Amino acid sequence: MNYCSHCGHTVRFAIPDGDDRPRFLCDACGTVHYQNPRIVAGTLPVAGERILLCRRAISPRKGFWTLPAGFMENAETVQEAALRETREEARAVVDDPTLYTLISLPHINQVYMIFLGDLDGDFAAGPESLEVELFDESQIPWDELAFPTIERTLRHFFDDRRRGTFELHLSQIGQEERERFFGSA
Amino acid sequence: MNYCSHCGHTVRFAIPDGDDRPRFLCDACGTVHYQNPRIVAGTLPVAGERILLCRRAISPRKGFWTLPAGFMENAETVQEAALRETREEARAVVDDPTLYTLISLPHINQVYMIFLGDLDGDFAAGPESLEVELFDESQIPWDELAFPTIERTLRHFFDDRRRGTFELHLSQIGQEERERFFGSA
Ligand SMILES: [Zn+2]
Ligand SMILES: [Zn+2]
Repeated sequence: MNYCSHCGHTVRFAIPDGDDRPRFLCDACGTVHYQNPRIVAGTLPVAGERILLCRRAISPRKGFWTLPAGFMENAETVQEAALRETREEARAVVDDPTLYTLISLPHINQVYMIFLGDLDGDFAAGPESLEVELFDESQIPWDELAFPTIERTLRHFFDDRRRGTFELHLSQIGQEERERFFGSA
Repeated sequence: MNYCSHCGHTVRFAIPDGDDRPRFLCDACGTVHYQNPRIVAGTLPVAGERILLCRRAISPRKGFWTLPAGFMENAETVQEAALRETREEARAVVDDPTLYTLISLPHINQVYMIFLGDLDGDFAAGPESLEVELFDESQIPWDELAFPTIERTLRHFFDDRRRGTFELHLSQIGQEERERFFGSA
């Protein structure tokens, strides 16, 4: 950030009075430009023994497999965002979505929220997907997954299915695990 | 938003190619300025039969009672944000925080995440609180609560405590409920 989005003046990066961390400040109009984490919402669609994955048609991680997910927009709920992304990327509908993984990524200022639910009907590749397919556990392309959040969510799912119980998993992924994941891909 | 925060040129509000909703666009440097919901993280601290509330020293809703909660910052996890806000507003520590309510507020582009946990030790008013106190159910100042998310979280808590079971409550608060809440206060 170089300029004030409100008045166009240059900004400086400093700790405002009464605050405890630096922000982008505009001395001309007085605006403090806060920056906050973004939510990535999506689903894990289940069809019997199989789950749905999309192969990304766009960067980052073009060509890698992911769950349908994307940035939550203003004026929607988390659940609406997850279902919208599923519709857009996989042309798919998920019934009774339940929040399943909530993963903070403090190094990239994101919070993932993936909902588990049953795939209802057909699916097809949307404009951001090269292909969309169903996989059983033995077919999951573990070395070609797009993001560590997707790997973690799938591991929870198959573990929980073996145990026969699904619960919310709240966790975080730090810099070290990100490097391990992307280093190995 | 009037000016590009990257290059200082004026922006326009229009649907980018390949997108489906209007964004602030800079024709000079090509930046698309996305705007996304913000997370408000906090806790419901429990001390035996009583729960902790803070009376707000700042606007909005100065003088009204709330749970310790505030905007999640970059470079932290949701849980860290909830505990930091509890420390800042109530000088309090909460043990074993468990995600308890997750409430989307699509009309104001916020997502509340309140964690339930046991108050550990002492508490005191931080700079954003006029006072911090413990209340049992009969003492809750229902007509002086700051936000509908706080009212809903407290109602879930006392209902769940009567039933003897606490689960995650995922919901939304729309414009109508917001008007009912603020109209009646
Ligand atoms: Zn300014
Ligand atoms: Zn620009």
